[in-house]
Amino acid sequence: MQNEQPLNQQSQHQINTAPRAARIGIVVTSDRASAGIYQDLGGPAIRETMRAYLRSPWTDVYRLINDDQATIESTLRSLCDEEHCDLIVTTGGTGPAARDVTPEATTAICQKMMPGFGELMRATSLQFVPTAILSRQTAGIRGKSLIINLPGKPKSIRECLDAVFPAVPYCLDLIGAAYLETHEDVIKAFRPKTK
Amino acid sequence: MQNEQPLNQQSQHQINTAPRAARIGIVVTSDRASAGIYQDLGGPAIRETMRAYLRSPWTDVYRLINDDQATIESTLRSLCDEEHCDLIVTTGGTGPAARDVTPEATTAICQKMMPGFGELMRATSLQFVPTAILSRQTAGIRGKSLIINLPGKPKSIRECLDAVFPAVPYCLDLIGAAYLETHEDVIKAFRPKTK
Amino acid sequence: MQNEQPLNQQSQHQINTAPRAARIGIVVTSDRASAGIYQDLGGPAIRETMRAYLRSPWTDVYRLINDDQATIESTLRSLCDEEHCDLIVTTGGTGPAARDVTPEATTAICQKMMPGFGELMRATSLQFVPTAILSRQTAGIRGKSLIINLPGKPKSIRECLDAVFPAVPYCLDLIGAAYLETHEDVIKAFRPKTK
Repeated sequence: MQNEQPLNQQSQHQINTAPRAARIGIVVTSDRASAGIYQDLGGPAIRETMRAYLRSPWTDVYRLINDDQATIESTLRSLCDEEHCDLIVTTGGTGPAARDVTPEATTAICQKMMPGFGELMRATSLQFVPTAILSRQTAGIRGKSLIINLPGKPKSIRECLDAVFPAVPYCLDLIGAAYLETHEDVIKAFRPKTK
Repeated sequence: MQNEQPLNQQSQHQINTAPRAARIGIVVTSDRASAGIYQDLGGPAIRETMRAYLRSPWTDVYRLINDDQATIESTLRSLCDEEHCDLIVTTGGTGPAARDVTPEATTAICQKMMPGFGELMRATSLQFVPTAILSRQTAGIRGKSLIINLPGKPKSIRECLDAVFPAVPYCLDLIGAAYLETHEDVIKAFRPKTK
Repeated sequence: MQNEQPLNQQSQHQINTAPRAARIGIVVTSDRASAGIYQDLGGPAIRETMRAYLRSPWTDVYRLINDDQATIESTLRSLCDEEHCDLIVTTGGTGPAARDVTPEATTAICQKMMPGFGELMRATSLQFVPTAILSRQTAGIRGKSLIINLPGKPKSIRECLDAVFPAVPYCLDLIGAAYLETHEDVIKAFRPKTK
């Protein structure tokens, strides 16, 4: 596709008087949090950020799982294919340790990888800590779902989302997912103008 | 290879009184343009940029095709193996939509990937639009051909080429392709000095 | 793993009165240097840099080999699995030429890739030369060994190590490798604070 805008997509949503609520999958991968040893802080941080960002209606589908690659893969597949999530954000499992396999699970189940997300999130985190290069975060697309890996720390989650989220609504338009509108004073979605 | 310069390559070309013309493949992937619904603007933008950049002789080999992955792959293979292009630039098909598969086709037929090209093109485009991270552009090498994916929009094509082209002539030297000379007031090719 | 610090790892080392010396593999890939045509300058540049950086004890395991992919792979595997190196740095073979296959060999034998290293090294080198995008350097993990590809030129080796090394000691902590301490006036290792 060359230089095309998702015209049908957008106008369809603009014509609808009640646009459908976006479905946002939140996947927390943590051996300790899923075993109840440790309280999940990543999930609430993502939910709070989405609440701050989004003006259009949305609901979340929350999953707290361990760091097993097969479990992560089946969870992501289910959120895409059965729960029909438009956007799925993961937190945890992106580091270099043996049990950090979220990027591998994401890559395994995506049809298309989006390298620009990981590059920008690492470049952004590098402004805060030199260990940002240890994060192996990626993003990709399966069907009509965009999956983005986020780091584990709540503070880093918000930094990374602030960096990439301006491109998320247009990405969802292009893959035929839900139409997102943001609170522009918090985060400004960018959609190229159609000529 | 460690710290080596393509001495033979360069001197051979400098000795030649009539260096051979470089062959530049221009591949436009667009379902709409290839069906005649829409005029190709990307191809002419690339040709114009090459005309502005290059002082040494060159000819282009133009292909306007649809966004089918098998078609893109066979076109790229033919431009490398039969048309013996030194440089191939594609435009279109690098986004997240279902029919955007130019990077996958490029990866499938290359022997060696060049991740630095995509990284720099995205970082450059990010200075203009936050949706630059949606571009999945890559570059790679097949035999003696360098293949670079460019975005679909004419304005973005020039921005991306301005960013990466200074490294292209030296890259062609290293893979044994044609020797390119540029108009230095437009774009300055960089070749490390041989010690 | 979500937001976890390698507590056991660190405290274990801090309790030890005599921490074990880190083992650092230095792999020079060069057809010409391994044939004795050309003196290896990369290996000594890495050894000198490590001497300047590291305050904690270390020994090196040096290998000078040709640019054959199978040879690079078996050398890396041996340094990980038999020599138990904590860190392995390679120099050479990261460019676009036919015999430049160090990144492919590294990818083939690693269990986990670390894309942030290559991205940061290229971004750093780009401040010096536009041909930095031709470097295909990567990094990855095999077992308890971190492998980092460096460029061939001694000057570029130091520039790249200066950029990524602040994250190396914490990366080794996370994979269960040796505990590194640096001369902070030369290079400052960053370890996130445990809450």
